[in-house]
Amino acid sequence: MGSAAASPPPSGSPLPSQDELKRVAAHRAVEFVEPGMTLGLGTGSTAAHALDRIGDLLRAGALPGVAGVPTSLKTELHASRAGIPLLPLGGAAGPARIHLSIDGADEVDADLNLVKGRGGSLLREKMIEGAGERFVVIVDESKLVPRLGCTGAIPVEVVPFGAPHTLGLIRKVFDGLPGFSARLRTVKKDAAEEMFVTDNGNYIVEMFFEDGVRGDLRGISDSLLRITGVVEHGMFLGMATTVVVANRDGTVTLLHKKK
Amino acid sequence: MGSAAASPPPSGSPLPSQDELKRVAAHRAVEFVEPGMTLGLGTGSTAAHALDRIGDLLRAGALPGVAGVPTSLKTELHASRAGIPLLPLGGAAGPARIHLSIDGADEVDADLNLVKGRGGSLLREKMIEGAGERFVVIVDESKLVPRLGCTGAIPVEVVPFGAPHTLGLIRKVFDGLPGFSARLRTVKKDAAEEMFVTDNGNYIVEMFFEDGVRGDLRGISDSLLRITGVVEHGMFLGMATTVVVANRDGTVTLLHKKK
Repeated sequence: MGSAAASPPPSGSPLPSQDELKRVAAHRAVEFVEPGMTLGLGTGSTAAHALDRIGDLLRAGALPGVAGVPTSLKTELHASRAGIPLLPLGGAAGPARIHLSIDGADEVDADLNLVKGRGGSLLREKMIEGAGERFVVIVDESKLVPRLGCTGAIPVEVVPFGAPHTLGLIRKVFDGLPGFSARLRTVKKDAAEEMFVTDNGNYIVEMFFEDGVRGDLRGISDSLLRITGVVEHGMFLGMATTVVVANRDGTVTLLHKKK
Repeated sequence: MGSAAASPPPSGSPLPSQDELKRVAAHRAVEFVEPGMTLGLGTGSTAAHALDRIGDLLRAGALPGVAGVPTSLKTELHASRAGIPLLPLGGAAGPARIHLSIDGADEVDADLNLVKGRGGSLLREKMIEGAGERFVVIVDESKLVPRLGCTGAIPVEVVPFGAPHTLGLIRKVFDGLPGFSARLRTVKKDAAEEMFVTDNGNYIVEMFFEDGVRGDLRGISDSLLRITGVVEHGMFLGMATTVVVANRDGTVTLLHKKK
């Protein structure tokens, strides 16, 4: 990891709640926003604090000309309520120019690779956050892991047609790896179990690793993307430029991507 | 190309029509079908002749135990009318075991790489035909090309969300290549122009090359698949095991994949 900086903890106060930690880190992340920027707006409880903060600063006149590209319908609603002008991703002129994206993550490794998408909107997040010049990630310190896939599933978005077949091919990529398993994500609806469906009408395969993914992550990424039926996966490799870590004691640490 | 064999032209008859050529080649392709096989069933006018032939042979009792996995809804309807028992692609047990697929193609190069999907169903075709042990392709000789993309578009299936952005990223893969262009495929509906939508609810980007794609096709494939928003493309690399070519004079040539 690159340079790190820590703010002092708020003196005399009890340890802050997890939501308060998220809020503090989100506010620190929003300090990277400058007037006139087009922002990629992330999804989830941490990113929501950033949306509120951006909205407050816009109303205060501190961020003239700032607009956002939302990564989900939920974020679109939240951002428009917060008063953030919204833009679509790309027009007839070609790729959108996004200056900075802000979002949470499920896991962050020592090279600032991420797992994202356990909430189910990895594709739009990856598209928008990959389009930006800078990507600031907000996490609490429990999300820092030695290897991706240590603390839960790595999601893979797949087309519904032939999904059990695609699941079988994903299993073959990790053939014989002890402790590996994969399944199609389901949701309980009334008494029944149904397939989880993404914003794009696709399914999610969840990959589980006993002790995280080892080896060449970019090679594994290509192997997954080469499977017909795989749309995208939740490993965000080399995309984060800064990670804002909310520590349990209320301090904030900044991790920067190595040049 | 590998070994080639030609059948004699039907003596004394005038040159056959293009549809008759397709029929002759399709019948030759169906000779590879053996009792008990599970077949990948292609889509299009050439594959349709193969479906009819398989149906005839099934009714005649010549192909006991044969069943098919259709690559499109159209093929599903046609095959069930022809009396071919149908199976879904993959079950809880994992990938489907498909012994042999039969389909047409838009272009075939000297290494038996294909362009497919100008009809719009590339993803299901690639999934099913890639799952098989053998893939027999039926074309007339006009489809044999020195390079893929010589005679028309190479399609790329993309998610609708951010499609103009994805189009821009696809253009960047071929940045500065003279004669390259790309556009989202549209269809005329009543007086208006609409986006063409695939079986999977996605859009199609059409890539045009003045003189075909040159260079490392697998590298180009990976570059396209790494774009978030790209689901699949219409280059079928190293997948065809046999190509049945219907020549203008009514003869049939078989091209086999190099081992």
